Amino acid sequence: MLHEIAHLAHIEIRTPVLDESVAFFTNYLGLTPNGEAGDSVFLRAWDDYENVTIKLTAHATSGVGRTYLRAASPEALDTRVKAIAATGRGIGWQDGDPGYGPTYVFTDPDGHELGLYYESSWYQAPPELKPALKNQAQAFPARGVSVRRLDHINYLGVDVEANRDYLRDTLGARVTEQIVLNDGSVAGSWTTFTNKGYDAVYTRDRTGTNGRLHHIAFATDTREDILKAADIALEQGVFIETGPHKHAIQQTFFLYVYEPGGNRIELCNAGARLVIAPDWQPVNWTEAERARGQAWGLKTIDSFHTHGTPPVEGAHL
Amino acid sequence: MLHEIAHLAHIEIRTPVLDESVAFFTNYLGLTPNGEAGDSVFLRAWDDYENVTIKLTAHATSGVGRTYLRAASPEALDTRVKAIAATGRGIGWQDGDPGYGPTYVFTDPDGHELGLYYESSWYQAPPELKPALKNQAQAFPARGVSVRRLDHINYLGVDVEANRDYLRDTLGARVTEQIVLNDGSVAGSWTTFTNKGYDAVYTRDRTGTNGRLHHIAFATDTREDILKAADIALEQGVFIETGPHKHAIQQTFFLYVYEPGGNRIELCNAGARLVIAPDWQPVNWTEAERARGQAWGLKTIDSFHTHGTPPVEGAHL
Amino acid sequence: MLHEIAHLAHIEIRTPVLDESVAFFTNYLGLTPNGEAGDSVFLRAWDDYENVTIKLTAHATSGVGRTYLRAASPEALDTRVKAIAATGRGIGWQDGDPGYGPTYVFTDPDGHELGLYYESSWYQAPPELKPALKNQAQAFPARGVSVRRLDHINYLGVDVEANRDYLRDTLGARVTEQIVLNDGSVAGSWTTFTNKGYDAVYTRDRTGTNGRLHHIAFATDTREDILKAADIALEQGVFIETGPHKHAIQQTFFLYVYEPGGNRIELCNAGARLVIAPDWQPVNWTEAERARGQAWGLKTIDSFHTHGTPPVEGAHL
Amino acid sequence: MLHEIAHLAHIEIRTPVLDESVAFFTNYLGLTPNGEAGDSVFLRAWDDYENVTIKLTAHATSGVGRTYLRAASPEALDTRVKAIAATGRGIGWQDGDPGYGPTYVFTDPDGHELGLYYESSWYQAPPELKPALKNQAQAFPARGVSVRRLDHINYLGVDVEANRDYLRDTLGARVTEQIVLNDGSVAGSWTTFTNKGYDAVYTRDRTGTNGRLHHIAFATDTREDILKAADIALEQGVFIETGPHKHAIQQTFFLYVYEPGGNRIELCNAGARLVIAPDWQPVNWTEAERARGQAWGLKTIDSFHTHGTPPVEGAHL
Repeated sequence: MLHEIAHLAHIEIRTPVLDESVAFFTNYLGLTPNGEAGDSVFLRAWDDYENVTIKLTAHATSGVGRTYLRAASPEALDTRVKAIAATGRGIGWQDGDPGYGPTYVFTDPDGHELGLYYESSWYQAPPELKPALKNQAQAFPARGVSVRRLDHINYLGVDVEANRDYLRDTLGARVTEQIVLNDGSVAGSWTTFTNKGYDAVYTRDRTGTNGRLHHIAFATDTREDILKAADIALEQGVFIETGPHKHAIQQTFFLYVYEPGGNRIELCNAGARLVIAPDWQPVNWTEAERARGQAWGLKTIDSFHTHGTPPVEGAHL
Repeated sequence: MLHEIAHLAHIEIRTPVLDESVAFFTNYLGLTPNGEAGDSVFLRAWDDYENVTIKLTAHATSGVGRTYLRAASPEALDTRVKAIAATGRGIGWQDGDPGYGPTYVFTDPDGHELGLYYESSWYQAPPELKPALKNQAQAFPARGVSVRRLDHINYLGVDVEANRDYLRDTLGARVTEQIVLNDGSVAGSWTTFTNKGYDAVYTRDRTGTNGRLHHIAFATDTREDILKAADIALEQGVFIETGPHKHAIQQTFFLYVYEPGGNRIELCNAGARLVIAPDWQPVNWTEAERARGQAWGLKTIDSFHTHGTPPVEGAHL
Repeated sequence: MLHEIAHLAHIEIRTPVLDESVAFFTNYLGLTPNGEAGDSVFLRAWDDYENVTIKLTAHATSGVGRTYLRAASPEALDTRVKAIAATGRGIGWQDGDPGYGPTYVFTDPDGHELGLYYESSWYQAPPELKPALKNQAQAFPARGVSVRRLDHINYLGVDVEANRDYLRDTLGARVTEQIVLNDGSVAGSWTTFTNKGYDAVYTRDRTGTNGRLHHIAFATDTREDILKAADIALEQGVFIETGPHKHAIQQTFFLYVYEPGGNRIELCNAGARLVIAPDWQPVNWTEAERARGQAWGLKTIDSFHTHGTPPVEGAHL
Repeated sequence: MLHEIAHLAHIEIRTPVLDESVAFFTNYLGLTPNGEAGDSVFLRAWDDYENVTIKLTAHATSGVGRTYLRAASPEALDTRVKAIAATGRGIGWQDGDPGYGPTYVFTDPDGHELGLYYESSWYQAPPELKPALKNQAQAFPARGVSVRRLDHINYLGVDVEANRDYLRDTLGARVTEQIVLNDGSVAGSWTTFTNKGYDAVYTRDRTGTNGRLHHIAFATDTREDILKAADIALEQGVFIETGPHKHAIQQTFFLYVYEPGGNRIELCNAGARLVIAPDWQPVNWTEAERARGQAWGLKTIDSFHTHGTPPVEGAHL
């Protein structure tokens, strides 16, 4: 079942201040609005080939809505849906977002909602957004941070191992790195569907709440892009929680900010480091190693362990 | 008289397509419009402390108008004006542009017009452009290339040595590098008023025309910023003449584009290399050294030797 | 059969000046010597997890020796070997290089020699090369360019389509971009086994010679790293053929140099751009599009179309 | 008297572990050893035009020895020496270090020792260190951080205002930024002799000790260079105290490490930001503004306020 999920696709984010959130994603991150439907606004990053990168939905609270994954083929979609259904976590088929085909909705053990699909009509840029090079989806915006693409999602989870196993056993995710506490339990799990070091992360929710979001992350090309992102955050009044600095885990260079709705957003550098070994063994970080701080010694700040955005009400646990 | 000129200040550029040129300077380079007067639009770079970086003036042709220099003090202004007047090249005192005090207008031996002043009211950013850090003039725009400041001007000149000597003897410019041909004549001269490697350049006009402009240059922080500038040029349909590459002379990393009015614009990396030695001797480049191409071997393209923008009519030779 | 080849592994390069080539790979590129055997010296890049990145072999001429690919599993190795054998291009099983298991040797239709294996003992850094972070293979050398890893190989081929089809049909390579001439023939083919845009390239050999090499490429993290690589090449007397500039195809930022043995080496920026779409359609570049030059307008230099390094004598066509 | 001091020149640093310190400056920072004399080893940065950047002297403790300044001319040397002598802080003329002419030795009010000279024989690179471009002092080393040049010195001082005034009134330093406490006293003063934002800094010694050093700083071209410096520090076991991050004051991007002798070393990005206004007014930072942390919010760590290296014994207060 390895490689039957092609990649993490778009993510629905809930915000109590839709207009402000749209402005943040457009002017700070540099996404491009690409349509609306009901209470939702769709936006896209310039290097994503599909129609939607983020679906912003007006809601009473912040938090993550549905996370979409694209199957690698119609056959892969079929076999994965059967495997999910067999776990009892399937919710069923629904129409996809505009530009997307039938989507099978389900949850992870923590109650986060996911959607799996294969059919996707590639983004067709309107004339004013046509790129100069035909191997690119959309013109580079040169506005704000101008993030390249969605990079990963980091869920909070009550039982990291259960969620990790579910992604691995049901969707074929590979575990690349983990935090393993002295008692042997796993407090964090980084998993990938691609050659990137990770696409989906679970870290332990210290409040014991199900279904919360830690952050979603967007990729820039270089670390300098992320330093510029910090400069621009300062200028635009965007709240910087921590960073820029380098994680020891996955060696990601990071900046964490909050969008106006309260969701944590990471800027991270894309792809220089790849995991291509077919027999990669999970790298397990101990408490002692974690106590040294981030790669260059920065201590993890308290809010990083407490701030999460609320779960979807009535999520299917 | 050394250090009596503080720095190169703003430059008037003529354009037959004023609206398109304003759009280029605003959306591509990332300057901020800052007022208008008559046929002119003023624009400024975010790190320039004065009111104006570029004065764009509607005109039948392209070309450079007046180049402004700021004296280091009222006394320095006085002594420099006397020295200029003694050469017979003075035109006389005029009102300054908005935000600037009395300006003494004169020409160089090639007929390019210059203005020297001391009084300058520092730029006061309106609320929406206030920077987050108080040691900065204006908020970083995060739009297009977002150049930091004006860097230098490169005039074409019929007699490079005469112009070089004039800057040196009348204004206290220091000569840092030169092109010296096999016949001993000087085909290019780089001079500075500051610790930057150069602020004003003369290169020989092969057409024998007086008063033309080769290019004006804007500074970015890094070479990567200039690579991005090339990417953005491609996306926005800005004509790239040559580059990015690295000059052997001054080791400047460069990109040359044309603005819609036809004036050549350089993007160059700022200030990492400084000239601080008080006894710096001009570095003279020979024809044989020049024949090796630019630093990494790129051959200089033909248009670089021919394309210049027209002189001001009736310039005072 | 897709994903049955995990990745391009190490490459054997032939050189008539072994010591000088070893010095180049060590001091300029920043590889680390890792053993010798017979007439060969092994070297490795700091982020490659296996023992060898480049095997330099003393030889009367320059040129590429064997290219190694790692299968994704023992089963994949088995099925791929059967598929290769069925084409009649199999040479047979051989012992692997030190640190590698049994290797099935075969050729492509152009006569380039390849080796396919699965077993590989991961690199164990000696104490003085231990990395500070345990998710990394070897300490960052901070010497010369310090390339991260091998990126791709570009073969010259007489019949690009035959070679492309062979990689696709026998090994599961995906075609991502191509040069398609006006007569409909394919003059260049970029194929990938991973989420990188390409791992193996064939471009047409205009001399009609089989088995030649155009270049091998190493990845750095950023474009600035490649500008530094050009600076260092200049300082170390390394011949720069062309660049730095940006290819329109694959949008790779490149620098081409020659190692002392005469083989062309590319420095390219890694991974920011990924190909993750499972239904990616080859991007076909026309002659008219190619005539525009590289991304920012640089014309391709003549030697790029003529310089190649000799084939292995007696290669199996 | 403005501009009579050309620039900060070389600095003598004391270390109880000379060999280890030499290794640090050579292999981590990438300086080049350039001679020895008595208990001292001289080293130089590749873009410094004089013979010495750092003079490392074996000593029982760490700490700063003599700081050298180069006068702008023989006449400037003469007038500055007279002005210093008039303050009663002159110690007298001494022979310069190898490659330097007669040096007038004196102290600042805090007892730090300084030397002022004009005569200096420019560095002549031996064949193996000849640069490829003749406008550069020495070949780029491509070893470790490969810092470009010395950037500034930050003294600890008991009475910041007295030291600031001394530099300003006796040497013509310009004050560009300050920390002004609620009681009106000045806790930090940044002063410059050039167009750089600062060359010499005094920050208040909270221990009330005279003559201590806070740090010396070396310039790299980009912020990414400083991120790499952090990576290399981690690999080489160099102690990172804080950073990388961006100071609000002067907007310097910084990394602080300790060399083996215990002296604090800063890596900072050079020159993109310049102070060219002749009427620049000191930017005064309040306690409230300082309480916001560094530019992007990092809190200043405790050791930054306490760790300093010892004064020269018997310094002339």
